[in-house]
Amino acid sequence: MQTLIAGGVVVSATGSAPAEVLVEGERIVAVVEPGTQLAESIAEGADLVVDATGKLVVPGGVDAHTHMEMPFGGTRASDTFETGTRAAAFGGTTTIADFAIQRRGESLRRSLDAWFAKADGQCAVDYGFHMILSDVNDQSLAEMDDLVAEGVTSFKLFMAYPGVFYSTDGDIVLAMQRAAAGGSTIMMHAENGIAIDVLVDEALARGDTAPRFHGLTRPERLEAEATHRAVELARVTGAPLYVVHLSASGALEEVVAARDRGQNAFAETCPQYLFLSDEDMARDGFEGAKYVCSPPLRARHHHDALWRGLRTNDLSVVSTDHCPFCFKEQKELGREDFSKIPNGIPGVEHRMDLIFQGVVRKEITLERWVEVTSTTPARMFGLYPRKGVVAPGADADLVVYDPRRRQTLSAESHHMAVDYSAYEGFEITGGVDTVVARGRVVVSGGRYTGARGDGRFVARGLNQYLL
Amino acid sequence: MQTLIAGGVVVSATGSAPAEVLVEGERIVAVVEPGTQLAESIAEGADLVVDATGKLVVPGGVDAHTHMEMPFGGTRASDTFETGTRAAAFGGTTTIADFAIQRRGESLRRSLDAWFAKADGQCAVDYGFHMILSDVNDQSLAEMDDLVAEGVTSFKLFMAYPGVFYSTDGDIVLAMQRAAAGGSTIMMHAENGIAIDVLVDEALARGDTAPRFHGLTRPERLEAEATHRAVELARVTGAPLYVVHLSASGALEEVVAARDRGQNAFAETCPQYLFLSDEDMARDGFEGAKYVCSPPLRARHHHDALWRGLRTNDLSVVSTDHCPFCFKEQKELGREDFSKIPNGIPGVEHRMDLIFQGVVRKEITLERWVEVTSTTPARMFGLYPRKGVVAPGADADLVVYDPRRRQTLSAESHHMAVDYSAYEGFEITGGVDTVVARGRVVVSGGRYTGARGDGRFVARGLNQYLL
Amino acid sequence: MQTLIAGGVVVSATGSAPAEVLVEGERIVAVVEPGTQLAESIAEGADLVVDATGKLVVPGGVDAHTHMEMPFGGTRASDTFETGTRAAAFGGTTTIADFAIQRRGESLRRSLDAWFAKADGQCAVDYGFHMILSDVNDQSLAEMDDLVAEGVTSFKLFMAYPGVFYSTDGDIVLAMQRAAAGGSTIMMHAENGIAIDVLVDEALARGDTAPRFHGLTRPERLEAEATHRAVELARVTGAPLYVVHLSASGALEEVVAARDRGQNAFAETCPQYLFLSDEDMARDGFEGAKYVCSPPLRARHHHDALWRGLRTNDLSVVSTDHCPFCFKEQKELGREDFSKIPNGIPGVEHRMDLIFQGVVRKEITLERWVEVTSTTPARMFGLYPRKGVVAPGADADLVVYDPRRRQTLSAESHHMAVDYSAYEGFEITGGVDTVVARGRVVVSGGRYTGARGDGRFVARGLNQYLL
Amino acid sequence: MQTLIAGGVVVSATGSAPAEVLVEGERIVAVVEPGTQLAESIAEGADLVVDATGKLVVPGGVDAHTHMEMPFGGTRASDTFETGTRAAAFGGTTTIADFAIQRRGESLRRSLDAWFAKADGQCAVDYGFHMILSDVNDQSLAEMDDLVAEGVTSFKLFMAYPGVFYSTDGDIVLAMQRAAAGGSTIMMHAENGIAIDVLVDEALARGDTAPRFHGLTRPERLEAEATHRAVELARVTGAPLYVVHLSASGALEEVVAARDRGQNAFAETCPQYLFLSDEDMARDGFEGAKYVCSPPLRARHHHDALWRGLRTNDLSVVSTDHCPFCFKEQKELGREDFSKIPNGIPGVEHRMDLIFQGVVRKEITLERWVEVTSTTPARMFGLYPRKGVVAPGADADLVVYDPRRRQTLSAESHHMAVDYSAYEGFEITGGVDTVVARGRVVVSGGRYTGARGDGRFVARGLNQYLL
Repeated sequence: MQTLIAGGVVVSATGSAPAEVLVEGERIVAVVEPGTQLAESIAEGADLVVDATGKLVVPGGVDAHTHMEMPFGGTRASDTFETGTRAAAFGGTTTIADFAIQRRGESLRRSLDAWFAKADGQCAVDYGFHMILSDVNDQSLAEMDDLVAEGVTSFKLFMAYPGVFYSTDGDIVLAMQRAAAGGSTIMMHAENGIAIDVLVDEALARGDTAPRFHGLTRPERLEAEATHRAVELARVTGAPLYVVHLSASGALEEVVAARDRGQNAFAETCPQYLFLSDEDMARDGFEGAKYVCSPPLRARHHHDALWRGLRTNDLSVVSTDHCPFCFKEQKELGREDFSKIPNGIPGVEHRMDLIFQGVVRKEITLERWVEVTSTTPARMFGLYPRKGVVAPGADADLVVYDPRRRQTLSAESHHMAVDYSAYEGFEITGGVDTVVARGRVVVSGGRYTGARGDGRFVARGLNQYLL
Repeated sequence: MQTLIAGGVVVSATGSAPAEVLVEGERIVAVVEPGTQLAESIAEGADLVVDATGKLVVPGGVDAHTHMEMPFGGTRASDTFETGTRAAAFGGTTTIADFAIQRRGESLRRSLDAWFAKADGQCAVDYGFHMILSDVNDQSLAEMDDLVAEGVTSFKLFMAYPGVFYSTDGDIVLAMQRAAAGGSTIMMHAENGIAIDVLVDEALARGDTAPRFHGLTRPERLEAEATHRAVELARVTGAPLYVVHLSASGALEEVVAARDRGQNAFAETCPQYLFLSDEDMARDGFEGAKYVCSPPLRARHHHDALWRGLRTNDLSVVSTDHCPFCFKEQKELGREDFSKIPNGIPGVEHRMDLIFQGVVRKEITLERWVEVTSTTPARMFGLYPRKGVVAPGADADLVVYDPRRRQTLSAESHHMAVDYSAYEGFEITGGVDTVVARGRVVVSGGRYTGARGDGRFVARGLNQYLL
Repeated sequence: MQTLIAGGVVVSATGSAPAEVLVEGERIVAVVEPGTQLAESIAEGADLVVDATGKLVVPGGVDAHTHMEMPFGGTRASDTFETGTRAAAFGGTTTIADFAIQRRGESLRRSLDAWFAKADGQCAVDYGFHMILSDVNDQSLAEMDDLVAEGVTSFKLFMAYPGVFYSTDGDIVLAMQRAAAGGSTIMMHAENGIAIDVLVDEALARGDTAPRFHGLTRPERLEAEATHRAVELARVTGAPLYVVHLSASGALEEVVAARDRGQNAFAETCPQYLFLSDEDMARDGFEGAKYVCSPPLRARHHHDALWRGLRTNDLSVVSTDHCPFCFKEQKELGREDFSKIPNGIPGVEHRMDLIFQGVVRKEITLERWVEVTSTTPARMFGLYPRKGVVAPGADADLVVYDPRRRQTLSAESHHMAVDYSAYEGFEITGGVDTVVARGRVVVSGGRYTGARGDGRFVARGLNQYLL
Repeated sequence: MQTLIAGGVVVSATGSAPAEVLVEGERIVAVVEPGTQLAESIAEGADLVVDATGKLVVPGGVDAHTHMEMPFGGTRASDTFETGTRAAAFGGTTTIADFAIQRRGESLRRSLDAWFAKADGQCAVDYGFHMILSDVNDQSLAEMDDLVAEGVTSFKLFMAYPGVFYSTDGDIVLAMQRAAAGGSTIMMHAENGIAIDVLVDEALARGDTAPRFHGLTRPERLEAEATHRAVELARVTGAPLYVVHLSASGALEEVVAARDRGQNAFAETCPQYLFLSDEDMARDGFEGAKYVCSPPLRARHHHDALWRGLRTNDLSVVSTDHCPFCFKEQKELGREDFSKIPNGIPGVEHRMDLIFQGVVRKEITLERWVEVTSTTPARMFGLYPRKGVVAPGADADLVVYDPRRRQTLSAESHHMAVDYSAYEGFEITGGVDTVVARGRVVVSGGRYTGARGDGRFVARGLNQYLL
């Protein structure tokens, strides 16, 4: 089966030019100059021609941070691997990297297998796993190398959530030493959870139980502090560090300082930190609960700092931290106590569209949009050149994107299994036209044309930014 | 005429993968996955197949800073456009951007035409021009827009060389305002020449006339100071700034600070600042004169800072500042007075090889090598996607590079028209195998197979990093 | 003649305690614990007892930056040495350091003698001189050492005012080298006047002639730039640097960076930069002219940065840059052209009171008030321990300050010879009760009890912060 | 009883001048200009005249960090309050602030009382207490205010020594909140003990048991990290912070950054970090054990940074962290395991002399010597103007210091109760001539003339640098 994506402008991380993309089976086999004799002969032979005239052809998005079906405080994230990855496909994301969670007392092997089982045969798009280390001990440290060998090459630690995922600085040193030796990358949730929990307890004791106190008890300096600490521990151990969901200028400055001195320190931010703010968390009644995530949404002035970080590459990636909980029954668990609100915001479907608004508003170039949403996460997490690029030999993960389309985001129309949208009513310029996932058209004309189980596990290599 | 580059690994700024590159006429028309049916049928139809097995296929180098035939202190740079561009081709550089010089009292138009005349019909590879503004006045300011329209989109100013190229801070403000309005980029030679000339006069008055005093009278803080000043004037006027031939850590810190805050500030360094040092300038007798350039070679500890800058993208480009003067009769003009030594070091031929040593020594990745020597200068100076990338539609400027070849640099063997090599005896791993320039094989098997005049003027667009 | 200041709390730069101060002739001869037998016997023998009960006793203020009778654009500052120093005395300042100005083409000797002549026999309080170098050449450089020998130990250079006071960076290097060798301190007006003059010309050409354009054409980045440059030139030459009238956070950051690395770099700010703003310059009609000085008044947010700098000792001194021009006939010279408004604001009388508001508002401690207005300028300009401290052996320059007095500043009531007050209507807590200058009560009960010529020239030593 | 210190030059934190100091009973009652009639009549009436001709008269030293008789790992520091304070007196230190230690499970009250009991009637010089919080809980937090009321106004926390003194970041937040409310100052041992203990365990497991591994397992980045964290927690809570025994440039940079932004953050260093190095810890055999303290001695290049910090006031105080353990039987506890070596270096006797070498070598001015060893610690810990200054009303704590004396430090001649000197053989310029403690000559002619119990507890006020 040969499919030709014709007439579009192919955008890469470095530039844009008209080109025809020939797909054979699951792979891109050629990129060809339009109007040449070769292009014409290829078009004639193609089984299917997708007309991309007037549109952009970009590598499928790579969302490096999702939590499908994640257990949290007695409930679990409302999107399954099936519904979540289908929503991803609708939004132009053709690969996700989800987090398998080690249970305390359980081996990495067993924990990871549970995640394999959840995802197997369910996904609309390809998926990889990062592994959350919640129980650093001799056995789990030893297992890290095994996981690297089978394509799980990044390990997440938490400086927050004492008693749940929290790792001590000693645990972090041990895991980082192992990562440094094995070449894997340490992902860090950088908030000083020990200090935060004191502030949370004090707030609750004062009767400050509304959602906005979630933010007030997690001040940005405690994210900056933890980010600095993570950077220093990585420096002492020599481990590559990737700071997840960076939300504020203070933490960004720490990453900037580390990168300026040449340390292998990287960071992602998420759409919610670029578009939403503490004002959303302070909405009337219990509405603010919809916006409760950690780190919390920050004051608006941080938006500028984060967009600048995306421009300067101090923020290398935009992921979603997709972790949806329904307002009804899930977010409501925290009506009387903000600390019981499940943390997370749905977003896997909207990442490409939201970040494209940065192009529209001239915050970033078109090329940078492709880079932060696809090319860099693919390189960072060992998926390139299979993912993240429109080039022969790559998986045929392609998005035909219409830069002129207008749409309004809404829970009414989105495909995520959650009963509200954090972006309800947002007016968007641009939109996905057609999505090809490993050679198959899975979204076209606003309809899903793929099948459950199209997506497969991808074993990942090491971070390609390292020397 | 169809040429196929087959069997190699194509390296881009973002990654590497095996691919066949089909050239038709002057352009790349397709990039194809090897081993596919399509690849085979293309190979059959090709007029010429270049075997790149075991080798890298990279976009032709772009050297954004050369001075062919440049007049300096009564003599002129020893390479003509003919000899200099041929040497460039030997070294894998298929595009140069040379500096046309406005003479004081002369219009930009007339000065530029003189450079067009020098280069026309002489060049082995494509060439563009930057324009040096040495006489900022109402007329020359007005002409800037005209030059942009015909593809001369960058203007160089000097904070050094009072009485020759020197611009006052007022001149700089005026030129930057015009550049900001028109979208062009200001290139800056950032050394405080006013302060330096005092130090030079004092040294000569003391009888300190040897070559090494060239360096001692141009301390790195006076480069850092000027860099800071250039950055601030660019900030006040909103102009894009590109600092040429950055030589030292102090100046780099100023660029880092500007980039950290999101300013459109960029910098290049040159191979001489990465491999040579003040010790070379202090060689016995008059040998040091071979190493006299401005800014001067610095202490060795700066090398680490500059390589780190290349890694972190605080240094975006490596150019050569190729400006050769023979030791005999030219450098010798300064035997009794270092200030009369023509400033400049030959290097256009060795840039790709020297920077590849950074890959060998694990200072930078293979992709970064391509980026700093080709892709970024092409994007920075408005040549992309015609130059700087292996993609359909691009000019077929291609280098087949053998990463395992061993060679020793020497004046005996180089092709530049200069009687010494600043890198005499350097052992290099890697070397150019075949060079294709706009579709034509111009270097093969160590022999030049092109012709004078193959290279044409390329009108350049604006800096593509700007929003 | 013995005078005892009894009953007050003596405040020094390090602390406060009740003490009696015994003055004999022109000097302090003893500081004694109150209530002791010794104190009682001294009180009995004293010719005069000044009752300081409930009040502070502080060393007389040292204003290190005044311009009495200064010629400027065809007119001259409206305060003579007589009126200006009397106003100083009213405000608790018992020593000034004024600027003698070298005329272009004239020797330092001759220029200085002219200033000696102006001040001789006129002053109410002691005075020293700094020397403005407007014509750096072999002769004036040679004269620097002579001036140091006679107690003129600081030399001011201008990076602004091309054609008037402006020194090139080369001139600055030469003067700094001489200062470094001789131990004197270089004072710097740090604004990039060359760039500013381009902006001024452009504004006038656009018809933007109102006072507020004075500020808009002197953006704070051009003060920061010049400050950085001054710091770097001082670093290259090894000269001690004192930045005068620092007005904004950007310039302050440059001083902070220099001081953090241990460079001998110091800075003063002035009350106008702590209390007034660009809004004053933008007042209706031509009112803004009253607030025209250079550097210009800045946006209000700089106030916080400057107070912080005073707290952290990154700003070491508060001087006034007292340079009064009457609104009528003087400021009015610039009605049609802001560049013709004489630059300067009257203030010598109000410095102690205005900075005391920082104590009232808890911006600085009481001790820091004494330090920045008296002790540090005395140490910085080689007057300590003769000035700047309440200790035996020191000149009996003393102020009895009433911390509870309330007053309203106004041209109606001030003693400066100028027809307006930049602080008209300011409500002040605190006020001068009694002033003793070299042993003589010169202000008491709001009346002047001294005589013209009481003040004498003080030969100054070198900066005491240097090693 | 009246004593006159005559003929000397009195040095304060701001300057130096000849003056006679009259002591009556325990206090200074007058400071008088020499040669005046008053001076002569006082001299006649004095019971005792101490001839300070050719010598310096300085306020008695204040050592803000000692650990007399401190329990540590089953042994205790070898100096009792009696021997330690007598040694202090010999070295010109007339006030110490020692650390009372809260035992886990014990109230502050009871713990403090134990320390009162140890010191009562034993001391040669005055003493105050800081309180170490090792068990942060509701009761101990509540007791903090009580201690402030009785003159124990500073509380020390440890980020190191898990299981012993260690406080979690949550504990730190709680204690800082209380300090911010009550005005007391938090003192911090800033090393990341959690991470360090992992490195220690790894070293021991590898068989790396020699003293030098003490240093290698406590890398300076883990001091810098903890310092940053302490600064951030202080910023979040608003508490004044005083970092004890800062040893390295990285930690210093964190303090500099905090101070630059105006935070109430202060730091001390100790003589051992200015004069000794990791090379001492690596001495042959077990000799290195003599130099084991925490933070450990650093590489020599840190010395420059620390002296610079003292010059710039980023380091405000020099204390000793005097904590002596004999080599025999005490240090020897760690022969087989560096982690069992009691941590600490003797030094209370040598602080004034060692820091005076900074004056000799022109690292700091004479005034700064007085400031960092006496005036600032007195102001920082609420002892001024009773201590830290030569002024009427102050306690008559005075040192006549001979700047020309030569001495060699040695265990043979020192007065501390410890069997080795960390400074054995150091050649010193300068030395204590006479020491007056609260009006009584306690050291004279190299002999101790005081008596056990001369020293009394001094209730301290709050930090005087706060607003």
